[in-house]
Amino acid sequence: MRIAVVAPSCPLKREAAARVQAIAAERGDTELAIHPQCFLSEGHFAGPDQARLQALREVMADSSVEAVWFARGGYGSNRIAEAALADLPAAARGKTYMGYSDAGFLLAGLHKAGVDVAWGPMPQDVLRSGGEAAVTRALDWLVRRDRSVLEPALDRPAMAFNLTVLSNLLGTPLEPDFTGVDLLIEEVSEQLYRIDRTMFHVTASANVRGAARLRLGRVADILANDPEFGIDEAAIVEDWCARSGIPFGGRADIGHDAQNRVVPFARRSS
Amino acid sequence: MRIAVVAPSCPLKREAAARVQAIAAERGDTELAIHPQCFLSEGHFAGPDQARLQALREVMADSSVEAVWFARGGYGSNRIAEAALADLPAAARGKTYMGYSDAGFLLAGLHKAGVDVAWGPMPQDVLRSGGEAAVTRALDWLVRRDRSVLEPALDRPAMAFNLTVLSNLLGTPLEPDFTGVDLLIEEVSEQLYRIDRTMFHVTASANVRGAARLRLGRVADILANDPEFGIDEAAIVEDWCARSGIPFGGRADIGHDAQNRVVPFARRSS
Repeated sequence: MRIAVVAPSCPLKREAAARVQAIAAERGDTELAIHPQCFLSEGHFAGPDQARLQALREVMADSSVEAVWFARGGYGSNRIAEAALADLPAAARGKTYMGYSDAGFLLAGLHKAGVDVAWGPMPQDVLRSGGEAAVTRALDWLVRRDRSVLEPALDRPAMAFNLTVLSNLLGTPLEPDFTGVDLLIEEVSEQLYRIDRTMFHVTASANVRGAARLRLGRVADILANDPEFGIDEAAIVEDWCARSGIPFGGRADIGHDAQNRVVPFARRSS
Repeated sequence: MRIAVVAPSCPLKREAAARVQAIAAERGDTELAIHPQCFLSEGHFAGPDQARLQALREVMADSSVEAVWFARGGYGSNRIAEAALADLPAAARGKTYMGYSDAGFLLAGLHKAGVDVAWGPMPQDVLRSGGEAAVTRALDWLVRRDRSVLEPALDRPAMAFNLTVLSNLLGTPLEPDFTGVDLLIEEVSEQLYRIDRTMFHVTASANVRGAARLRLGRVADILANDPEFGIDEAAIVEDWCARSGIPFGGRADIGHDAQNRVVPFARRSS
């Protein structure tokens, strides 16, 4: 399978690119086409908006590419997502798109457009401890649809988002329909008061309230709250679920880490 | 004038309370009723939700109180705002409510309910360098409607919000109608990439796009962005204004500082 790697947010490290190329070569079933745009750098981003958009549009329109794998998160895919989704070429619809974190802006918009997307590890994750297993999990889904790499409790249509990304896409043209899905969220490097505030925002949404359940992935690297917030992240999420009438579905096996699992988004037909 | 002080977010420092009491006493035109709830502490908050809500509802319903002055920001007024606004007693409507930062959740909801609110300095600000002038500015508006304390370029109906608070109240029951107003924003202690992301979110809103102009107050204590973001906060805001078709109205004289000025929200009748 030919998989294109582009970086709609921040640059991919050369070392990560080399290591995922080696993993793909060893598998024998995967050809990784790492777009040179992945290594561009302009301020915070992997090149200017126009360069990131052009690379993404290019691989989306390339009928020899069967999957698009977002290189890493960071920040910035939202800046080009709406333009990337305009007048989708037919070839863009026959692929799977994978990523997480900031790439959630694109997953949301692509899913809304009826395209196949999945939350899952990204090439830059190979640099994490245990990262080889993470990227192998991603490739096992993209190439072989190996269900053993899926989040283990996906017993109904699901979507997964970083909580802050979810909050920032509500009300934008990228917002998908959450009706009846299990909505999996995770977070990294936030204070608990921010998580509480974001949960207030997200659970006020009528669309989010239409979700079947809200499930909480890992909340990593919680930044110090001065004073101590008083309750932990699970209690915060359960509290806002109770306030908003969204059933809390317990914990989920996703997060900003090498254990992160794959969550294919509910298809429109399901 | 009898002004009640309550703390819907975080606790007021005793030293701040004493200093604003002294300022009020010296004026001779102001009686400050600092509610004991201001000094409660539970985790992040000035007491549990129920205690903060009860104190707020109490002063709202007190017909001897002519204004309600929020003690300080921090985080937490959103947790009680919807309940505070339910079945508003008649006495709640005949007052002015003042605050900024996290108190913006209440300002938004109260304004939406047709009540008189103003962005302006809060009691805890007295502890800032130059803070005596700040709280005097607030009192000069509440007590004497002294127009010299207003943001100097209010030439049409206006509202003011902390940018992150604005983002988090969109889509909630607190969201007011921005049609035709000058929307003033400010920010504190955020990275530029977060400001960019929040501007993406806020300017995607059809309601915000109905504002007459967006004006940028001070953006203080910008946290390090690694790598450097590339453009500054004014360029970020101008960029999102251009993308979304909202006229950029230049800078505004508000912020998380002792120079912060008063912005009475547009009345429904105006």
